Amino acid sequence: MGEFELLARLRERLAQPSPRVMVGLGDDAAVTVPGGATATSVDAIIDGVHFRRETAPLASIGRKALAAGLSDLAAMGAEPGEAYVILGVPPDLDEEGCLEVFAGIEELADRTGTSLAGGDVTRAPVLTIAITAVGHAADPESFITRAGAGPDHTVVVTGELGGAAAGLRLLSEPALADRLDAATAADLRARQLEPRPRLAEGRELGLAGARAMIDISDGLGADAGHLGDESGVRVEIDLELAPLQAGVAEVAAAAGEDRLEFAAGEGEDYELLACLPADGVEAARESLAALGCRLTVIGRCAAGEGVLLSGPGNREIQARGFDQLS
Amino acid sequence: MGEFELLARLRERLAQPSPRVMVGLGDDAAVTVPGGATATSVDAIIDGVHFRRETAPLASIGRKALAAGLSDLAAMGAEPGEAYVILGVPPDLDEEGCLEVFAGIEELADRTGTSLAGGDVTRAPVLTIAITAVGHAADPESFITRAGAGPDHTVVVTGELGGAAAGLRLLSEPALADRLDAATAADLRARQLEPRPRLAEGRELGLAGARAMIDISDGLGADAGHLGDESGVRVEIDLELAPLQAGVAEVAAAAGEDRLEFAAGEGEDYELLACLPADGVEAARESLAALGCRLTVIGRCAAGEGVLLSGPGNREIQARGFDQLS
Repeated sequence: MGEFELLARLRERLAQPSPRVMVGLGDDAAVTVPGGATATSVDAIIDGVHFRRETAPLASIGRKALAAGLSDLAAMGAEPGEAYVILGVPPDLDEEGCLEVFAGIEELADRTGTSLAGGDVTRAPVLTIAITAVGHAADPESFITRAGAGPDHTVVVTGELGGAAAGLRLLSEPALADRLDAATAADLRARQLEPRPRLAEGRELGLAGARAMIDISDGLGADAGHLGDESGVRVEIDLELAPLQAGVAEVAAAAGEDRLEFAAGEGEDYELLACLPADGVEAARESLAALGCRLTVIGRCAAGEGVLLSGPGNREIQARGFDQLS
Repeated sequence: MGEFELLARLRERLAQPSPRVMVGLGDDAAVTVPGGATATSVDAIIDGVHFRRETAPLASIGRKALAAGLSDLAAMGAEPGEAYVILGVPPDLDEEGCLEVFAGIEELADRTGTSLAGGDVTRAPVLTIAITAVGHAADPESFITRAGAGPDHTVVVTGELGGAAAGLRLLSEPALADRLDAATAADLRARQLEPRPRLAEGRELGLAGARAMIDISDGLGADAGHLGDESGVRVEIDLELAPLQAGVAEVAAAAGEDRLEFAAGEGEDYELLACLPADGVEAARESLAALGCRLTVIGRCAAGEGVLLSGPGNREIQARGFDQLS
């Protein structure tokens, strides 16, 4: 298999569904007419760092790579637009395998209305996927950054937490699922393997008045810290309020770990953490309910800096460094 | 060293020099207001595939990564705008090393008026740099794609060829430089380590009437083939006309290889190959001369398909497959 042949095959398969993309795959660069403002995010996932080929189907690795990029757009309240893919192909991945990875990317792109506008294929020591995701809005002020939280804002989170961490444990130690029913265990594994970018939820939160937003990729504690740093506020979170995915407590117990650590200390849940004035919470909750997504108040912003994670019995939980290259 | 600390340091160092970039490093995504049309290219360079850390200073690896991305923009005739960087950090590269890589990227970004608008840092098995380069034009028709060549066009190339291939040989076998003067050998090594994107030249070629353009990253033969395929023409190149960089013939002879193969069969010279009507060549040549860049007629387009590379004595040189993942 050669790079050009693979690119030619991909090109055949990739439609050019967007009126915004004038020139797609097959030239030196893709040509688009963005209009308005764009939000651009770059992300890479690498075998052995962000996933393991032994435990993840190739299509789901592709989906996860794109999902992580789209999740950044969700956290901006952006409309997804184009994605660009760099595929690093290890010696033991054949053409069929490359196409499986792309099929996963393509499937999520189709589902989210994202145009695959360009890409590159190269040799690499291990499977590597780098995604550039470009989202759109009418003007730059429509995007929700990390910087707009005020000291009186309410802190909310979409969906449920801890599932990605629990799913990761189940993938490496299947016996931890012994006390779970099959569907719950499958949902946890899927949470790790198949994250869903909260695109519609991000836009609704923006419309409902969210002033600052971030996606939870590094972990609730770390990401709350990023948001607080950018906004110049202290983020106080009561972990007893954090909505845990079904089965997280059981897996944590079976693994001898802290369920709150699963929810707050590990990343990849790809939920959205948002700050908004208290009087906007109810409307936001209703908007998200219409999308089938719960929204939970988990804390508030205060004057100051840093993150306070409080747990059961009001003990303070030290937000760990989380500062590992990942 | 952690990801966040490194990102924070980078952020301190990276100015936000463009009025187009509203939100740069430090949020989920960068926010820009592009206006007009954009050209977007993604590229990765990986240790052991595109460079070797043993033979390349870290700053030059950074510059080369960005240069490859900017060269794609040059081939579109685009104005460089923003670049986004993913740095994959191997276990044996410390923070100082990461900053050296970024210093190289930053240096070339400054020199070319490119804003570093976003990035990501992750662990990786070997040093990996993925670049997303975004260029601009007033409208999509102002970009020069690979698809506009006609069967009566003249084929021109900027600068000189073969230097990157010769430089690569000198880096791995220093003794091959024995018959060269030091400056010539240094120029050849620099050609491999420090490619220059032909940004101003690409814009001038567009203004002078180039109808199709590509940068020579895969090799003259392969890239002429890409251009011919997209334009639906046959590209006929007389390799005796190809401008060789000083010292290329000597290194090829010392290595027992074909100097024309250096010029036509290997990539990374990052010159521009363009097609234009014959009556525009002289004006294009003058425009490029004003930039200090030579422009050489090396062939013509004809009806048909494929690439014909003819060499000394009119023997036909089979365009090699060139179809290796690289």
